[in-house]
Amino acid sequence: MSPEEFRASGHQVVDWIADYLRDIRDLPVLPDVQPGELIDALPATGPEHGESMDVILADFRNLIVPGITHWNHPRFFAYFSISASGPGILGEMLAAALNVNHMLWKTSPAATELEQVTLGWLRQWLGLPDSYFGIIHDTASTGSLHAILAARELASPGVRLTGEHNPLVLYASEHAHSSIDRGALAAGIGLENVHHVPSDDQFRMRPDALATMIEADLAAGKKPFCVVATAGTTSATSVDSVAQIGEIARRYQLWFHVDAAYAGSAALLEEHRHILDGATQADSLVVNPHKWLFTPVDLSILYTRRPDVMRRMLSLEEAPPYLQAAEQDRAVNLSEYSLALGRRFRSLKLWFVLRYFGREGITRILRRHMEMARDLAQRISTDSRFELAAPVLFSLVCFRYRGSDQNNRDLLDRINASGRAFLSGTTLHGKFVLRLAIGNIATTEDDVRQTWEWIRSSALPATGSPAAEPPRPL
Amino acid sequence: MSPEEFRASGHQVVDWIADYLRDIRDLPVLPDVQPGELIDALPATGPEHGESMDVILADFRNLIVPGITHWNHPRFFAYFSISASGPGILGEMLAAALNVNHMLWKTSPAATELEQVTLGWLRQWLGLPDSYFGIIHDTASTGSLHAILAARELASPGVRLTGEHNPLVLYASEHAHSSIDRGALAAGIGLENVHHVPSDDQFRMRPDALATMIEADLAAGKKPFCVVATAGTTSATSVDSVAQIGEIARRYQLWFHVDAAYAGSAALLEEHRHILDGATQADSLVVNPHKWLFTPVDLSILYTRRPDVMRRMLSLEEAPPYLQAAEQDRAVNLSEYSLALGRRFRSLKLWFVLRYFGREGITRILRRHMEMARDLAQRISTDSRFELAAPVLFSLVCFRYRGSDQNNRDLLDRINASGRAFLSGTTLHGKFVLRLAIGNIATTEDDVRQTWEWIRSSALPATGSPAAEPPRPL
Repeated sequence: MSPEEFRASGHQVVDWIADYLRDIRDLPVLPDVQPGELIDALPATGPEHGESMDVILADFRNLIVPGITHWNHPRFFAYFSISASGPGILGEMLAAALNVNHMLWKTSPAATELEQVTLGWLRQWLGLPDSYFGIIHDTASTGSLHAILAARELASPGVRLTGEHNPLVLYASEHAHSSIDRGALAAGIGLENVHHVPSDDQFRMRPDALATMIEADLAAGKKPFCVVATAGTTSATSVDSVAQIGEIARRYQLWFHVDAAYAGSAALLEEHRHILDGATQADSLVVNPHKWLFTPVDLSILYTRRPDVMRRMLSLEEAPPYLQAAEQDRAVNLSEYSLALGRRFRSLKLWFVLRYFGREGITRILRRHMEMARDLAQRISTDSRFELAAPVLFSLVCFRYRGSDQNNRDLLDRINASGRAFLSGTTLHGKFVLRLAIGNIATTEDDVRQTWEWIRSSALPATGSPAAEPPRPL
Repeated sequence: MSPEEFRASGHQVVDWIADYLRDIRDLPVLPDVQPGELIDALPATGPEHGESMDVILADFRNLIVPGITHWNHPRFFAYFSISASGPGILGEMLAAALNVNHMLWKTSPAATELEQVTLGWLRQWLGLPDSYFGIIHDTASTGSLHAILAARELASPGVRLTGEHNPLVLYASEHAHSSIDRGALAAGIGLENVHHVPSDDQFRMRPDALATMIEADLAAGKKPFCVVATAGTTSATSVDSVAQIGEIARRYQLWFHVDAAYAGSAALLEEHRHILDGATQADSLVVNPHKWLFTPVDLSILYTRRPDVMRRMLSLEEAPPYLQAAEQDRAVNLSEYSLALGRRFRSLKLWFVLRYFGREGITRILRRHMEMARDLAQRISTDSRFELAAPVLFSLVCFRYRGSDQNNRDLLDRINASGRAFLSGTTLHGKFVLRLAIGNIATTEDDVRQTWEWIRSSALPATGSPAAEPPRPL
């Protein structure tokens, strides 16, 4: 493709994206498609000869877009709502064109250093210590895996060479993300050695239970090596006491990892800074700008107080020739700290986002999201047919219809099938509840209020017969 | 950022990219910067207030671009040369705007199914069996880690729960990529249990040596569990005998993984299809469209004959509520097969590339790259001061100046410092050699010939004094 052909198609694509961002509310959030529909609509064999970009883009619009779940839709309220903001998209465009792989400093000095600069800015805004070293991974799953590997390295230095280790035990709350279990599984710790600590009535890890479990494991001859606190659990955004758990970690010399993938962003606000109180003693901490910081997927940050361990845990006896790089004081070779050797230029989009909005702009949007959540909670609590299912700490509202789990599942299905909004569900205190997560940069008060009206009108009325479905958007 | 503001900035960015692709030869491939230079040039603290996109883009051009190593430059000949082709960049632009995370089928049916469709097309073009299941990972390092975890699961099913396993042994050639060692390290196998099999004089794993090593390990009470063949080693693009190694793997019931990250693309050509002969019995195979298939980083494919094992090896006792999805025949939930839960919409750019070029267009470009490499090898072999250091099988040429290692290192440094081209070095048969890897879609015969002239004129002349440096581009 010649540069001029790219220019022409590129302008078309930019116009499509601008129209998409402008008109996205006209699209159903969840697509109305059946499994296999796209597979059946596309040729079973790739094209022998090249096709024009116009034809390809038409197929994108006509075949792909109707099968997309629109994560960038202002009424995407499922899981954790995310945003590809304008500056973030622009950053990805340029990163794709430069096509940098900054595995070593010399394989792209600017990409290496911009990662350090942007992660430094964010570290300051989050109130984390200057001594933290930051590195970008694709997802929090990967970041936490690296934290667990570092913990394993510190507890059992021989494992790197021999693969042998004592029965190591990792602790995380029963509400910790499944990526912690999977990370331990991959690292060869074993799922049975991930001990889930009970939580209190607000879904926070009980420090007393943690200490008791550690003592019992020690008495049984096992070797506790790592504890994970969660700041913003997936189901309820509850926040474990980082300070108290950190204190216990220090007492027993455990690696202390903080999973702040979602709620870490909230620490940008003075009034929420306290959720990371005690994080100065964490050995590692993960926070995801691709969750609640307007940055397109993927971009997850792993901060660590122990870059030396992160580096040693992946080091080979001898670097292969293609990875040998001159030792220079300020030339960091980031691939020494990550299992993935190749590294996309992810910090560019984060730099664009941090600069375009500024700290003040970002905190203003986060505050607005939290206000919308509080406002919704207020509305829910004044409707006698509904009840809140968890404290509203940030921008997630967990609630339920006062009826059976099946009533709530049906309600969720009706809303989602309407295409007007996408919510998710979870189980809290043994009951199925609905989750409405606010976090998209384009979400307005009206989006939340309308969605609440649809939920109310879709819920079983007092008579017991289901209300009419909201009309599907055209 | 309003859609209209995005539109305006987006058009600016597209024009910049088009100009960049057009004028890229005017830029030095390797930047002339010192470690810390960008860090010092940027503010130590992030901006309190938002800035205009114009100012940010100006800083991108003036501060970032001069520090970039231009992987998309037609004279980037280091490591493996890669390409962000026009269609690939357009795909990334749209993927960034959609911002999909297709961890489950329902979280984006089209992204899930397009991944299956594109990987199916490529599987056919590579002559791999229809029964292969494909999944996209970020890098081959990650894909191979998953292969090793699957091998561990099959050899030692208890490890998932208990973390305990017999001393497992993995085999790979001494020329295998370092990511194999790191994958084994992460999986808790231990570096000492990665046995490097000697290679023949053309850098291919010796099957006889492999069998001997397996027998010795069995006799010593160890448990061989995995063997990795490489199709296109990093140093010399040598190709292990997939058929013979596969036969040994079957005999000893080892998981057989093929690392075809680079050379796998060559199997698109009839005349090179044979390099994957025997791959039908491989349990897994990795190939990187972001290497030699004109797709922007990152996009690596892991094919496997055993998706059941890939899924089981990561399965938890119970899926968390947010990952519970209705079982439907054709609705594949891709995150069940990968450690990273979040999944970018990577197949879109691959779809664009496969369609825009077609099989015929892609093979034509690959053939041209190989012709350029053969032409260069011919020139090298007719200059008595130089010698080829490895067979030219695909598009990599390994050669050396007939002098000391230091002479060759100096020569490499002079070329790279000139900014006109970027080559890398490696060690073959104990000697330092230069690697010139052709693979960028915009590389022309002139680029290669000119670079060869610069190399010749930069080499020590017969008198022993270094030639003048080639002028640095403006």
